[in-house]
Amino acid sequence: MSALRVEAVAGLPEVRPGDDLAGLLLDAGLRAGDRDVLCVAHKVVSKAEGRVVDLAAVTAGDRARAIAAAHGKDPRQVQVVLDEAASIVRERPGVLICRTRHGFVCANAGVDASNAGGPTRLVLLPLDPDASARRLRAGLRERTGSAPAVVITDSFGRAWRRGQCETAIGVAGLTLVDDWLGRVDADGRELQATAIAIADEAAAAADLVRAKDSREPAVVVRGLERHVTAGDGPGAVALVRAAEEDLFA
Amino acid sequence: MSALRVEAVAGLPEVRPGDDLAGLLLDAGLRAGDRDVLCVAHKVVSKAEGRVVDLAAVTAGDRARAIAAAHGKDPRQVQVVLDEAASIVRERPGVLICRTRHGFVCANAGVDASNAGGPTRLVLLPLDPDASARRLRAGLRERTGSAPAVVITDSFGRAWRRGQCETAIGVAGLTLVDDWLGRVDADGRELQATAIAIADEAAAAADLVRAKDSREPAVVVRGLERHVTAGDGPGAVALVRAAEEDLFA
Repeated sequence: MSALRVEAVAGLPEVRPGDDLAGLLLDAGLRAGDRDVLCVAHKVVSKAEGRVVDLAAVTAGDRARAIAAAHGKDPRQVQVVLDEAASIVRERPGVLICRTRHGFVCANAGVDASNAGGPTRLVLLPLDPDASARRLRAGLRERTGSAPAVVITDSFGRAWRRGQCETAIGVAGLTLVDDWLGRVDADGRELQATAIAIADEAAAAADLVRAKDSREPAVVVRGLERHVTAGDGPGAVALVRAAEEDLFA
Repeated sequence: MSALRVEAVAGLPEVRPGDDLAGLLLDAGLRAGDRDVLCVAHKVVSKAEGRVVDLAAVTAGDRARAIAAAHGKDPRQVQVVLDEAASIVRERPGVLICRTRHGFVCANAGVDASNAGGPTRLVLLPLDPDASARRLRAGLRERTGSAPAVVITDSFGRAWRRGQCETAIGVAGLTLVDDWLGRVDADGRELQATAIAIADEAAAAADLVRAKDSREPAVVVRGLERHVTAGDGPGAVALVRAAEEDLFA
């Protein structure tokens, strides 16, 4: 019988550009060993990396103004979304579904006004969330001698279903997908299409203990050691399906 | 600091039509109180409800034969998928993305050949997974005096991302979506679009402790009591987005 334990780390102070996130997390009481998985909501990572924009510094272009007028949005906010998006996948009133430059498909290219640290500020996704995960893992190894797997997460909406699930956008040291192709089921029949999205399920599990309005971005998941790897691996970008092989979209 | 504990229930014997699932789970050592969430992979529910088809008893029609020829599949298996599907959303080699009669969008309308109890057998989704969840909850209440929330799950692929996440297809007694509209963030700014898919995240967390080739369909999640409700609620069908309001698809 296997078990998982998921625990939120105590809240952090407001994170500022240049802050040392590994140090802040350790100061907050983070205890994570080599077999554990540390899930961190991207917002604190983005803030530490200075990925925050103030609307006062943004000038909207023609395209942003046109889209904003059609959807009742602030043209400067739309400009920030366009700057972050590789392409717009769908336009709906109040929301632009975008493919980000990393390849993720999400609302407003991950640009978020809540918990941004001020009423005119927007938090962007990290430039390279996989690199952020690797840096945080290395920083923890350096300070503590232990290197838990690190998953950086954001809440993404889903096609066809209500609500958002927390999703892995940066990964270091955790299996992305546990692919059962070639293994057999309890009848001895080969499993054809079982590929469990471990990193995304870990992100979802972590979200269940986190209160979004508190400052608890970090969660430790214990019991996933069979999926933790010594190397950092290819990162969450490897979860992106190329448009031409997409089964659903 | 909040925490979650996720524990697999010991394996069940092979489940047969008419089996009493609550009794089997209790015999296997299930201990779940009113504040816990019991997640059950749908396959054992389907088997207990007789939702199993033997290919030997299936005759493929013209449409099934045409699709099977185009995609290199068994025409009888395609016939079973068509019988379960309200519509075909996408056709890809080897897989049909369907909207089921419940409204869920998933590969092959949820029809699954693995762990089906025999090489020519297919397991279907329960006819009404929400009713199945309510029955199981009532059965546990009757036998033990305690009624944990019940979530019946299946692994669904996702648009734009590799791998499958375990997803709620039947729910009794658990918040489906924790909607933060109207609440404020740490800056006092109103949260606009935070709606956490609790039941789906619980299904994902449960999947992380379950080995798919073992017979461990049942998992207890402890620590979600703030989302467990006395009433059964509207069920997982309320998670389905109507086609016309879909943001992504």
